[in-house]
Order: sequence, then C-alpha cells, then structure tokens
Amino acid sequence: MGPALDVPSGSTAVASTIDAVFTARVRSAEAYHPVFGQLWKLCGERISGGKGIRPRLMLDMFGALRPDARADTRAVAEQGPVPAAVVDIAAAIELLHASFLLHDDVFDGDLTRRGSPNLIGLLATHPGDTETTAAQRLHWARSCGILMGDLLLAEVHQIFARVDVEPAARTALLDLLAHAITESVVGEQLDIGLEDGTVVADTATVLEMCRLKTATYTFELPLRAAAILAGADSAAADAALAAAGAHLGLAFQLQDDLLSTFGDPAEHGKDAFSDLREGKETAVIAAARMTSAWPEIEPAFGDCELTVTEGERVQRLLRECGAESFVHGLIDDQMRALHETLADPASELPDAARQTLVSLAARLDGRRS
Amino acid sequence: MGPALDVPSGSTAVASTIDAVFTARVRSAEAYHPVFGQLWKLCGERISGGKGIRPRLMLDMFGALRPDARADTRAVAEQGPVPAAVVDIAAAIELLHASFLLHDDVFDGDLTRRGSPNLIGLLATHPGDTETTAAQRLHWARSCGILMGDLLLAEVHQIFARVDVEPAARTALLDLLAHAITESVVGEQLDIGLEDGTVVADTATVLEMCRLKTATYTFELPLRAAAILAGADSAAADAALAAAGAHLGLAFQLQDDLLSTFGDPAEHGKDAFSDLREGKETAVIAAARMTSAWPEIEPAFGDCELTVTEGERVQRLLRECGAESFVHGLIDDQMRALHETLADPASELPDAARQTLVSLAARLDGRRS
Repeated sequence: MGPALDVPSGSTAVASTIDAVFTARVRSAEAYHPVFGQLWKLCGERISGGKGIRPRLMLDMFGALRPDARADTRAVAEQGPVPAAVVDIAAAIELLHASFLLHDDVFDGDLTRRGSPNLIGLLATHPGDTETTAAQRLHWARSCGILMGDLLLAEVHQIFARVDVEPAARTALLDLLAHAITESVVGEQLDIGLEDGTVVADTATVLEMCRLKTATYTFELPLRAAAILAGADSAAADAALAAAGAHLGLAFQLQDDLLSTFGDPAEHGKDAFSDLREGKETAVIAAARMTSAWPEIEPAFGDCELTVTEGERVQRLLRECGAESFVHGLIDDQMRALHETLADPASELPDAARQTLVSLAARLDGRRS
Repeated sequence: MGPALDVPSGSTAVASTIDAVFTARVRSAEAYHPVFGQLWKLCGERISGGKGIRPRLMLDMFGALRPDARADTRAVAEQGPVPAAVVDIAAAIELLHASFLLHDDVFDGDLTRRGSPNLIGLLATHPGDTETTAAQRLHWARSCGILMGDLLLAEVHQIFARVDVEPAARTALLDLLAHAITESVVGEQLDIGLEDGTVVADTATVLEMCRLKTATYTFELPLRAAAILAGADSAAADAALAAAGAHLGLAFQLQDDLLSTFGDPAEHGKDAFSDLREGKETAVIAAARMTSAWPEIEPAFGDCELTVTEGERVQRLLRECGAESFVHGLIDDQMRALHETLADPASELPDAARQTLVSLAARLDGRRS
C-alpha cells in the first residue's frame, strides 16, 4: 500500500480540492452576511482533520484498478498523476461524510466529536449566556448544523453531477451515490428508532442497521466509484466490490461498537460508557440481551447518570456473559466472508485490487480508534 | 393564462411525475424496513396537496418562451405537449420546496401546516404515550423530518443531474439550482438568527432575509429554468427574469407577512398571532420598531402566551402606527420595479413572457392566502 510516510499525490490533491471548495464558499458566503461566512468557515476548519479513510480507500482501489496499474501495489505512490475526476469524487465522498456527521450530531444532541467541540458545540457556546439565551443559542446552533449539512449534501451532488467522465460513467456514479445515501439514511433512521424503542431490537435488525449506516457510504461507495472511474466496473467486479464493502463495512462498525464499549477512551475519542448512557443499540447489547446476564445489565442501559463504577461493572458483565467474544466472532465472520469473496476467481478483480482489500482488512484488524 | 377550469397537460404531467417518484421510493423503501417505507409514504401523502405555484410558474413561462410559442398566451393550454425535461425540472422544484418545508418545520418546532398535522406531527402522535415516551417520539419524528428532507434534496439533485438536455443547458440548470439553494439557506439562517437575536434586526437585513428565503427558489428558479429549457436564456433575458423573480418574490413574502399579521386565519391557514407569539422578525415588525408605538407593542412580541385580546390589540397598534401601510408601500415598490423591468425593451423578453409575469403579479395582488 506504499510506505507509511508517503503522502500520495492523490491525498494531497483531495485535501486541496476540499480546501478550495471551502475557500470559495466562505468568500461568497461573506458577501451575503457575516453569519453565513462564519458558518462555512467553522465547518471548513472542522473538516480538515479526520483520518480520510474514504478518500484513501478510493485512491488505493483506483490505483489498483486503473488501466495502467502496475502489478506491484507498492508502486501505487509512483504511478501517474491521479485524474481530476478521481480527486473530485474522492473529495465529494469526504464531504458526504461531513454532511452525515453534521446531521448525526443533531440527532444525537452531541456538542463534541473526538473530544473537541463540533460545529454545534462551537456555535452554541457564548460567554455570558443566561439559561434562556443558552437555550436559544442551542436552537440556533442545531439549526445551523442542519443547514450546513444540507449545503454539503448539495455540494456533493454538484460534484458528482459535473464530474468529467463519459455520460455512462457519470450515470453509474449518480446511481451509486443515490444507493449510498438511501442506505445511510435508512441505517440512521433505524439507529434512532432502535434507541428510543420505536423499532424493535431484534438481532437481525440491529446488525442490518450497523451495516447500512456505515458500510455502504464508507466502503462500498469509494470502492465501486473507483472501479467505475477506472473503467473496471464489470458486473462481476462491481458485485465483488459491493460484497467486499459490505463485509468490511460491517466489520468496521462492529469494531467501532467494541471500541466504544471496551476500548480506551484516550484512543477512540468518545466518552467511556456514552453508548451505555444513551441506550445505544449495538451488536454488543443485542448479544447481551440473549444471555442470562441481561437482567443485571438492563437497569444501567440508557441510564444517563451511569457512574464510572457502574459502567466498569457493566463492562465486566458484558465480557463475562460472552457478548464481547460473540461480537469478535461476528467480525471474524465478516472477515472470512471478505476473503472468500476475494478468493473467488469469478470476481474478475485483478490481484492488485484483491491485495488492496486484504491489506486494508489487516490494518483494520488491529485498530484501536 | 388560460381559462380557470383548464388542467394544463403540463401540470398533470408534473403531478404524475411526483407520484411516480414516491410510488417507486415507497416500494424500494419497504424492502429495507417498514418504518422507512412509512416515512416515504407519509411524505408522499403530504405533498400531493399544495398550490403548486412553482411548477405552474415554470410551465407558464416555458409556454411563453418556447421556440414555438404562440403570441396569444390564451393558447398556452393548446400548445404542443410539454417536453419531459420541463416536466422533470418542474417536479424537482416542487420537491425542493417540500424538502425546505420539512427542515423549516424542524427549525420552527411546528407540528402542523395549514391546519393539518405535518409529517413531524403525524410521526409524533401516538395514543398512550407518557410524557417520557412522547418526548422520545418527538425526537424520533423530528429526526425523521430531517432525514426525509435530506432524501428529497438528494432526489432534486438527481433529477437536475440527469435531465435530458444539452450539456451546456444542464450545467446552467445546475448552477441555477446551486444559487437557489444557497440563497434559500442563508435566508433561512437569517430568519432563525433574527428571531433569537443572534442577528441584529436592522431593516435592510430583515428585508434581505425576506427576499432570500423565498424569492429565489419560488420565483427566480422556475422563471430562469424555463428560459434555459426554452433556449431563451440570453444574458439580458436571464437578468430580467432574475430581477423579476426578486421583485415578485419579495412582494410575495411581504404579502405573506401581512396576511399572517392581519389576515383571516381561515383563509391563510396559520394560527392568528403565531408570528407575534414566536417573535418572528418580519417587515411589519421592522417597520413598527421605528415608530413611537413600539414600546407598547414590544412586550407582546415573542410572548408565547399572548391572548387573543392582546393579539387583537397589537394588531390595532400595528395598523395605527403605520406599519401595515408602510409594508403595503414596500409591496407597491416591488410591483413598480417589476413593471419597470418588464417595460425595458433591453430585457429581450417576448411579449408572451412579459404578459405571463404581469398576469401573475395581478393574481398575487389580490391574494388572501
């Protein structure tokens, strides 16, 4: 996948493209009113962070599938420049992620992300606020979060709609975008419904929610977009990448749930026990519900005043009842299914593409954040 | 504009197109989960109502500008069939309006629209809810409203991105859509900020907010889209339609504010005095602030427990201090500016197009809802 210290030209180009979008929008926004300029500015400052897993995945897969790809994937960084269309779509996928996060923070009522104030938290904080004005400011901040999410969603579509490729490829990309958004939205709707009890928390629904809310736009979208842009999206290859994206994506989300419940907050960035306090339906909880330990765990679930001591006790129970190892087993299932997909010669994926996915899976396996 | 009982084939086609979108989306949504299917279904039922002013405006202007337009506008209904591209964009503009309303209802905390439950109101209502479960259900309903607004915004872009026209025309349409969304969003942001005091309520800002939040997507977008689709979007014509849209749109919004404050609730559909209770910054209030009556009015402004008697007293004060007639004067300003734009021969608008706009202005002049 290239040495760890490489800065592939593609990644730099993606970051530059995103910066250019925000620079232009801040400037035109300020012409309307300072608060609109500030909204774009604060949002742009929030986005330049992050791991950029989605653009990296797309650039790596494109490098592996492009017509001039070298069989040796270690040479990805040395290949020709990345076409503008690939950079644009990779940037758009990162903006889609940002758009989803903005609305997710509204659904969850979160004012921080990875330990720092998110956009809503920034806009909601004002020294000297009384209780009344603080409530109004929170409403202002959440509304701005919704509006900014809308603006980014529109921006994503504008990029896809204008991408410089053949009409058939652009149509395929637009179809893929529609699919990814649909699945992300229903995944999010199920996540919210499971949490408040509107949707019944059976195991299959919880797992499907985990997959839908993350896998499609995080893995399937970049992988299949790369194939379309590389002209390598035969029906078989496309299906294989869709399956690979689904397996990797569900594994990734299940890992996230394990990290939130059992991991080191200093590494994963979320409050310890926040999932427990919020009553978040995860695969860990779905598994625990099936065990005899559930009556002991249940009172703590959704208890927003859960103490650290209580949280650590529940953590122990979740381990002891087998829920943690069960979910590890689910992750192994997904990784096994991924490798089966990649091993199937009918997938029409070249070796470089298989290797890209195998390497990604290996990197995800050991992650702590 | 055609006899009142005509059902122009274009309008029927637009309604059918919207129905077809919802039918298809409900079916595919149900395959994921019943709650997702229900979300699309309830949304579709809410949309089939409405006055459809935007699609009508676009169809009428297209009829006036199309290359084969007859000089006699009364023959609009008898012209050839409306091209699919025109129907699609008109339908998309109506979906854009629906998307904005969904998010507006979240910002305003409204559970009804025109006297009936809106989508949030429908989803938030459940017999047997306790105070706790009702709060959770309201959160569920608002989150669904945000998600549905996102889905419709995506749908709008998909339609624009795939419209069957020459690339240059499609790019022009996409630019126009970006412009309309930008102005609608900043208008909405200013509306919210003015209401809670984050944005200072000077008259110029209030008027600009009124224009931005309504005029661009309601008038400018359909008018200029029609010109692009008719191949009649010379720089001069496009500028004239943009100006006409701005004047008509601001006049329309100012009329809305007068109706909300002074009109008959049975006709305009909103609660009497709701704008006063919410502390909504309107041109009427901006004008009243400048008069000596303001200290008497101010305590009632934003008083969510305003009684009917109090509301009627404030109404009287707003009339007597001159605010009502001042805003009538602003509307007349806009209508005058509109007619100047239309009278300017440099606008390159054919007579049929001018006549369409003059007729529309005349219809808006006497409206009560």
